Amino acid sequence: MEIKSIFFDIDHTLYDSSLQVESARRNAIKAMIEAGLDVDEKTALESLNSIVKKFGSNYQSHFDELLKEFDYPYDPHIIAAGIVAYHTTKIAYLVPYPDTVPTLIKLNETGYKLGIITDGIPVKQWEKLIRLGLQHFFHSVFISSDIEKEKPALEMFNLALKEMKLKPKEAMMVGDRIDKDIAGANKVGMITVQILRGKYSKNIPKSKLEEPDYVISTMKDLLDILNKYV
Amino acid sequence: MEIKSIFFDIDHTLYDSSLQVESARRNAIKAMIEAGLDVDEKTALESLNSIVKKFGSNYQSHFDELLKEFDYPYDPHIIAAGIVAYHTTKIAYLVPYPDTVPTLIKLNETGYKLGIITDGIPVKQWEKLIRLGLQHFFHSVFISSDIEKEKPALEMFNLALKEMKLKPKEAMMVGDRIDKDIAGANKVGMITVQILRGKYSKNIPKSKLEEPDYVISTMKDLLDILNKYV
Repeated sequence: MEIKSIFFDIDHTLYDSSLQVESARRNAIKAMIEAGLDVDEKTALESLNSIVKKFGSNYQSHFDELLKEFDYPYDPHIIAAGIVAYHTTKIAYLVPYPDTVPTLIKLNETGYKLGIITDGIPVKQWEKLIRLGLQHFFHSVFISSDIEKEKPALEMFNLALKEMKLKPKEAMMVGDRIDKDIAGANKVGMITVQILRGKYSKNIPKSKLEEPDYVISTMKDLLDILNKYV
Repeated sequence: MEIKSIFFDIDHTLYDSSLQVESARRNAIKAMIEAGLDVDEKTALESLNSIVKKFGSNYQSHFDELLKEFDYPYDPHIIAAGIVAYHTTKIAYLVPYPDTVPTLIKLNETGYKLGIITDGIPVKQWEKLIRLGLQHFFHSVFISSDIEKEKPALEMFNLALKEMKLKPKEAMMVGDRIDKDIAGANKVGMITVQILRGKYSKNIPKSKLEEPDYVISTMKDLLDILNKYV
């Protein structure tokens, strides 16, 4: 069956989100030390990582917690230094992988309808697409928290098929996570492609459902796979 | 009496905050229209201005309200487009007036201790100083919400005098607002300088308390005034 539509995850699929977050945290710590936090970089970074783990990544006061951790009083100068460095770095690293844009252009001109299926807060995910400069490539964007069912729940994938008027085998899902992107898309019968990027790429499938139809290491490999379906 | 210390307000004193906010709002509206908001720029901008007036500038969902105003359903793409353009512009316009840095360097090398006395949220005000690149010029930063007394309350000014161990006439306050900066500093007996910048510069003193000792139009004029006290 001919493939008509290709859906992508965002993080570790269109851009290097681990590099982004690691760099942003490291630069935040450096700036806080420059502003007066007298803790060595490695210790402070480990502490920040456990704070983010404990409070979640959308918590608003990670740096306030960090000061408490080292028995500092509330200090808006040190906190602001961390925030400015964090955001500046985060934005600087919001660039697509080198092969993302050339491949999307190629897929688009070949006639595939492109879409996004992702978890996360809708406004935040759109901010990423806009800052990545990719928002105009995607015909449809499906973000799980809109329907309160995260990947691998099949609702998101079914919604995408329904709204784009696709049979499952006319749709391909490309993502880095076998437990989320691949398992979810397999459930509804899409063609699944795992891209080996980022920290989740070494995970081993725990069930048949987590086994992708294809594994690729760069986005350009998609073009070869798609040629088999023409 | 010799002047030992000079305190500055931030907005309209060290940088053009009106130009910043106007440009940020205008660019947010342009981006929202580009993302699909079908309203003319002038109408949308007027609506955004009244929303900010109604909900306050630290409210988090101005653009959500804007969509409601024009009977649009919640649309994270349009909202994110507004947010990205707003923040990008806001950061781009966080640059000091052309004479700010040369004057601060001159004052610093002459031996004056420099400080900030400002209203606002401490972390936000520190973020401004850091992005302006001015944070290292100031020996002390006093932000009113730390003590929950906004200018022109005399508490902030007294605290600054006390912590810097100054007699009132050893301290100068430079700001754009006669009702806040000048009135407050006059109350405690500091030397007061109004700088004619921004939207508040045309206000007429309502009482003796709002009358500054000096009025200047550029920061460099401070040097001439200070020479009288040497």
